[in-house]
Amino acid sequence: MNVNIFEQWESDIRGYCRVYPTVFTKASNARQWDENGKSYIDFFAGAGVLNFGHNNPLMKKALVEYIESDGVTHSLDTYTVAKREFMEKFVNTILKPRKMNHKLQFMGPTGTNSVELALKMARRATGRRTVVAFSHAFHGMTLGALACTTNNHFRNAAGVPLEHVVHQPFDAEAGDPLGGGLEALDRLRAMYEDSSSGLEAPAAFIVEPIQAEGGVNVASKEWLLAVQKLAHDLGALFILDDIQAGCGRTGSYFSFDGMGLDPDVITLAKGLGGFGTPIAMNLVKPEYDKLWKPGEHTGTFRGQNLSFVAGRIGLGYFDDDEFNQQTKRKGKIMQDALEKIAAGYSQKQFQVRGKGMMQALDVGDGEVAKKIVSGSFEGGMLCGAVGTGGRAIKLIPPLTIPDEDLKEGLDIFARAVEAAAGGAG
Amino acid sequence: MNVNIFEQWESDIRGYCRVYPTVFTKASNARQWDENGKSYIDFFAGAGVLNFGHNNPLMKKALVEYIESDGVTHSLDTYTVAKREFMEKFVNTILKPRKMNHKLQFMGPTGTNSVELALKMARRATGRRTVVAFSHAFHGMTLGALACTTNNHFRNAAGVPLEHVVHQPFDAEAGDPLGGGLEALDRLRAMYEDSSSGLEAPAAFIVEPIQAEGGVNVASKEWLLAVQKLAHDLGALFILDDIQAGCGRTGSYFSFDGMGLDPDVITLAKGLGGFGTPIAMNLVKPEYDKLWKPGEHTGTFRGQNLSFVAGRIGLGYFDDDEFNQQTKRKGKIMQDALEKIAAGYSQKQFQVRGKGMMQALDVGDGEVAKKIVSGSFEGGMLCGAVGTGGRAIKLIPPLTIPDEDLKEGLDIFARAVEAAAGGAG
Amino acid sequence: MNVNIFEQWESDIRGYCRVYPTVFTKASNARQWDENGKSYIDFFAGAGVLNFGHNNPLMKKALVEYIESDGVTHSLDTYTVAKREFMEKFVNTILKPRKMNHKLQFMGPTGTNSVELALKMARRATGRRTVVAFSHAFHGMTLGALACTTNNHFRNAAGVPLEHVVHQPFDAEAGDPLGGGLEALDRLRAMYEDSSSGLEAPAAFIVEPIQAEGGVNVASKEWLLAVQKLAHDLGALFILDDIQAGCGRTGSYFSFDGMGLDPDVITLAKGLGGFGTPIAMNLVKPEYDKLWKPGEHTGTFRGQNLSFVAGRIGLGYFDDDEFNQQTKRKGKIMQDALEKIAAGYSQKQFQVRGKGMMQALDVGDGEVAKKIVSGSFEGGMLCGAVGTGGRAIKLIPPLTIPDEDLKEGLDIFARAVEAAAGGAG
Amino acid sequence: MNVNIFEQWESDIRGYCRVYPTVFTKASNARQWDENGKSYIDFFAGAGVLNFGHNNPLMKKALVEYIESDGVTHSLDTYTVAKREFMEKFVNTILKPRKMNHKLQFMGPTGTNSVELALKMARRATGRRTVVAFSHAFHGMTLGALACTTNNHFRNAAGVPLEHVVHQPFDAEAGDPLGGGLEALDRLRAMYEDSSSGLEAPAAFIVEPIQAEGGVNVASKEWLLAVQKLAHDLGALFILDDIQAGCGRTGSYFSFDGMGLDPDVITLAKGLGGFGTPIAMNLVKPEYDKLWKPGEHTGTFRGQNLSFVAGRIGLGYFDDDEFNQQTKRKGKIMQDALEKIAAGYSQKQFQVRGKGMMQALDVGDGEVAKKIVSGSFEGGMLCGAVGTGGRAIKLIPPLTIPDEDLKEGLDIFARAVEAAAGGAG
Repeated sequence: MNVNIFEQWESDIRGYCRVYPTVFTKASNARQWDENGKSYIDFFAGAGVLNFGHNNPLMKKALVEYIESDGVTHSLDTYTVAKREFMEKFVNTILKPRKMNHKLQFMGPTGTNSVELALKMARRATGRRTVVAFSHAFHGMTLGALACTTNNHFRNAAGVPLEHVVHQPFDAEAGDPLGGGLEALDRLRAMYEDSSSGLEAPAAFIVEPIQAEGGVNVASKEWLLAVQKLAHDLGALFILDDIQAGCGRTGSYFSFDGMGLDPDVITLAKGLGGFGTPIAMNLVKPEYDKLWKPGEHTGTFRGQNLSFVAGRIGLGYFDDDEFNQQTKRKGKIMQDALEKIAAGYSQKQFQVRGKGMMQALDVGDGEVAKKIVSGSFEGGMLCGAVGTGGRAIKLIPPLTIPDEDLKEGLDIFARAVEAAAGGAG
Repeated sequence: MNVNIFEQWESDIRGYCRVYPTVFTKASNARQWDENGKSYIDFFAGAGVLNFGHNNPLMKKALVEYIESDGVTHSLDTYTVAKREFMEKFVNTILKPRKMNHKLQFMGPTGTNSVELALKMARRATGRRTVVAFSHAFHGMTLGALACTTNNHFRNAAGVPLEHVVHQPFDAEAGDPLGGGLEALDRLRAMYEDSSSGLEAPAAFIVEPIQAEGGVNVASKEWLLAVQKLAHDLGALFILDDIQAGCGRTGSYFSFDGMGLDPDVITLAKGLGGFGTPIAMNLVKPEYDKLWKPGEHTGTFRGQNLSFVAGRIGLGYFDDDEFNQQTKRKGKIMQDALEKIAAGYSQKQFQVRGKGMMQALDVGDGEVAKKIVSGSFEGGMLCGAVGTGGRAIKLIPPLTIPDEDLKEGLDIFARAVEAAAGGAG
Repeated sequence: MNVNIFEQWESDIRGYCRVYPTVFTKASNARQWDENGKSYIDFFAGAGVLNFGHNNPLMKKALVEYIESDGVTHSLDTYTVAKREFMEKFVNTILKPRKMNHKLQFMGPTGTNSVELALKMARRATGRRTVVAFSHAFHGMTLGALACTTNNHFRNAAGVPLEHVVHQPFDAEAGDPLGGGLEALDRLRAMYEDSSSGLEAPAAFIVEPIQAEGGVNVASKEWLLAVQKLAHDLGALFILDDIQAGCGRTGSYFSFDGMGLDPDVITLAKGLGGFGTPIAMNLVKPEYDKLWKPGEHTGTFRGQNLSFVAGRIGLGYFDDDEFNQQTKRKGKIMQDALEKIAAGYSQKQFQVRGKGMMQALDVGDGEVAKKIVSGSFEGGMLCGAVGTGGRAIKLIPPLTIPDEDLKEGLDIFARAVEAAAGGAG
Repeated sequence: MNVNIFEQWESDIRGYCRVYPTVFTKASNARQWDENGKSYIDFFAGAGVLNFGHNNPLMKKALVEYIESDGVTHSLDTYTVAKREFMEKFVNTILKPRKMNHKLQFMGPTGTNSVELALKMARRATGRRTVVAFSHAFHGMTLGALACTTNNHFRNAAGVPLEHVVHQPFDAEAGDPLGGGLEALDRLRAMYEDSSSGLEAPAAFIVEPIQAEGGVNVASKEWLLAVQKLAHDLGALFILDDIQAGCGRTGSYFSFDGMGLDPDVITLAKGLGGFGTPIAMNLVKPEYDKLWKPGEHTGTFRGQNLSFVAGRIGLGYFDDDEFNQQTKRKGKIMQDALEKIAAGYSQKQFQVRGKGMMQALDVGDGEVAKKIVSGSFEGGMLCGAVGTGGRAIKLIPPLTIPDEDLKEGLDIFARAVEAAAGGAG
């Protein structure tokens, strides 16, 4: 493995290459190969980007055709045929069946860009400045989004105070250790309704229905409805950040489908582009969207036609419910495997959390989790640690993973847990 | 032209589609076609992204091969062969000949991400918070970068105060109407050296050697050297934002090549990926880079292998000086054409500014400029307005534009100027 | 009553003159007279300044002698005999019996100045920026203190965001409607102990042991001890703001005497000067105080010798415990009278809260409270409304009030309650 | 000298006592005595408070009578006879002759309180947040005012970023070393008039007509008029901070009398109370003042009747012009004496600056200035260092100083200069 160039020339800030110390060369569906020819089953999927697998063959074909036909690749927010087809597909497949009339807004093609713009939207719509975010949230790394993100590791890098955001505990039902929930929202409501509490009326509540980086904490329907009601009662916008949990990851297109929620803004990115090429998009209610003037937030790379082309094919997976059913089925396999592991270490109180094909094993200890991730890598399976101190291992394979790869990956993982945690069990 | 889907479903914030009201479908080198078959000569080049032309054939070939061979597309900051080859090419072609030992840092693949990280770097390195930016600067749209950006149109969308940045006038030699220059820097130095001036010691000076969005203001070597000296004398970092002017645009790889500058951080994006797919990269001096802890700033899309593959080919254009010479030659053609136009309206005091193949005609009036842009579009040529109130038209065709397209485009432009400004001349 | 000059020339921001629409001319102990000769029994005491009565005869004598002997009146922080005698008296009477070794710090002679400096001390000592304050707190009107103050009426006047402060609910035992208490502190501790909660480690907790303006909310010993422990466990300073409740108001010199608390900083003002002339002083633990450089916080009026002269006499009231016993006895008379009133309106759920000679009747409705205050004024007794929406009437007569005035005042108040609330009872 | 109590118990932040290491006991007009009986001629005057001398006999008499007659001492913003008489005197003596219709606003009785409120007023009136202040300014120590103050010694104590203020160089005519002036204002205007300069429209310009702490920098009439015009052209308020230079110090009541200025807000404190007891007052144009709601900014000590009583007598000095003429005459004596000293050290380029009875000798070196101040103290004369690094010695004796004391003090000072600077001359 020739990593000299990286060690000599790449910034010390590089991270995942330390978790997976090899050089990857090829990938197909749920498998990656390094340049030594070793194969890895991918339960990391580009941090949730590769819902449809590495080098999805339908997308490959479409992309090659698009490139060979001299399709427009880069277009900012000019109109292109590829963008139109993507939008039509999105509107018809996702919005219309849900009777949603949200506007589609494109920006710089990263999740943090979409969050920044969602916050601007809320502040514009309300004339207020503070935003309520939740503990263990991850919303991005640029200053506006970073103020919502909670991990001190990231916050400490800001170099300036992170302002205008109030943090509250996440839903306790989600396994969140800080004990939020409906009662916490009642307390927060009382604070906001008292003109002498010290809290200012908020511009928005921003919530991940499932906190992926925060530890795979799955908010309950009741809690999300209560957050939404509180937001609307206070004249604030309700923003759902579905960047990692959306695009089919949990067995439905949005992670919050079927809960009766009516968010004012939804942020999407990661899986939206299908192939791993960048894209981000916000869904914004028309009554708020119309407050924008043209070009008030721009971004050079906001028209990514390769992502439109592949993303349109990704949306096709939701033409009917079969794909979602498969995701649920595979998610159940994952959950069962993790529950079985957890049951084997009953005195350690491992927790299993997740929804659909985002599942996590919380081992309660970042050092143990690190060993498990490392052992899995050695065994030929890629996964990553999340949550406070990296105490949980998150499993998010491509939704298209074959059953045999899924099971083999879970077996490798089980052995890594055994190696890391077994002795002290 | 079927734009219903856009008008009905896309956010009101969309901008360039209003300047170019058509639907593009194909593009090759310096030409774009809309779905009515009309051809446009592109003097906009994706806001400076498409330095090597739309669908550059060398890149097309490499990308198609990469995709068909199941190369890893999305990799965060794990190691891949494509990334290694890109880095090797960058180091050998760009850094080593200049005796630079900067580290390569990848982040979310947009310019604003790179600026956010450059600011974090400076604040980390100095323990200070304020940054000096310059009037008419454009550094991005996320809150940290937006605080450096100057246009009130963008700043007003923030919804919160934009802090920790001090703005100073840009180099007067650049045609900047606010009259900065060496004397202004002397005054600023006096302010900083007086412990009772009210200014805090800065973390960094961030400068675009050529302000593209700000009106194509080309800073002089003397002024840039003086800014660098002031920064270093004050213990601050000297950051050059070469996102739009870099990557060969001005007839050398960096827009500031040959000036004897030694920036601590250089931000790059736009043209770096070659094909129009996103990428951003900072060059950071090792003594500062080593202050990072792994993963303190992350970004899902920070490993874009299609951009690495095409970007490596783009770097090949700088293997020798021929390409740069061509850029200078064509830039001279552009400049001459604009000077000739300006000479035709001597009483209007049009100004021509630029370097290499970034040239602008400042007509002193946003309404006139708007008409010229619109007339050019009608005539089959794409360009955009920049500067305060949109008073200047910036011309940045692909560096690979054939001479005949270049001349035809300039002719179309001249006619549009005549139509918009001639009557009142 | 000639108020023309006020109505014509004084700022519209004037407030209490609207509650007491007359022109006062003389005052003695607990009585004030207006220029029509009408007498008022003072249960307001200059917002808690006049603990020793208007024109306390001992103080009058000392002040007249001091002035006639050409004593230094204004001295900034130079040394004067009057200051030395005040400090000696304070050290011997207050600090030494409590085995406290806090340093005495003088600043601009207003409570808000003392809070500003306490906050600077905490930030200096910890290198952190955020401060925890509590709902219904009042700490002052200048920007640093105002960020801690909670009433939106005051906060809205800031004109800039109020930053760097986190607000938490006050002790529920205090009658605070937001339901804080020990469990809330446990939740807050959990948030602070989780590195991914979004909260930054705080510089300080600032607490009023009794929130006077906030509605006369009396924190329990247990809760204050828990706040102190949480602060110290987090490496933060524990600041007690005893500006209104201190200086003997509650039957002991500090309102928190006897609770076993060990605050790092105590802010004092109001009653400290004895006579109604301004003074403010912080008590600061030596290990923090020594971090100051000379003159880092100044204030022209920080050496007020008239306040030192009268204040020294005020301190004499605490030479033995008799004065405190009288305060407790009179406080009991006040409490009993209010309890009797409240009992007469049982269906209205009036609440009586207080300690020593700071007692309040919470009538749950700002409009009713306003009528009671107005009726009391008409009847010849001065009091003021506090709490959210002005829902409670606070009674804080001079501690030296004669029993007959105390009882007459309470009778007037009872009649005003009857007139305002009786009909609807 | 018994300073044990101070050294043992007073905060390390104490400052002036280190410059004047003795314990003062008595004072009369321009003389102070320490407890060893040594006499000092006072050229410091309580940092500009004691314009009418220590223990002014007219004021002593009035205060003693007021106290002995049980006048109301402390009244917040209720109406009192003493306040009415003060206001009538101020309106008749100061406002009406100048055809000013400003409202009188009282707040916490310190200069920093008055500045905080002036800033709130400007932000309320304009809906904007940023304020323009000038290098070498001193406006106070609380966070809002401190953001305007320039000395890093003070700013570094804030512990949080000081925001929302832009600093510009002061008038070059004033001797300000940073080279501001009319051209600098033109440049600033150009910045503000360019929508892409990065500057936001300001809420106010706050200026000291004479910067006392900043080094006794006397702004020219032309520059002040230009600042005022720029403020008004930009829709911003023009605030004059006359806290130290006002109340007769310069030979007219306001330091800017006769310049044709029309400030929107004037801040006053220090000399206003006459006797050394605290008071502060803003003069606010009615059209802005009426934007306040009652009680939006409060302050316990904002009704200081001893200051009203003595202050009214102080205002009597301005019934005719004789007092101002004497101030000018004595100021000339001071200036001549300083010019003579400066002429004796021609190679050192000492500068003399000032107006009326605020005069300074700038010796260009803080260490030398410190020795001069120390030598003066030893010789029996009190003065203080100001300006960047403490490079200038400011002389501000009581306006009522007898000629013999004035001359003796200047002689002592001259000898101290000789001792400190003579050797190296």
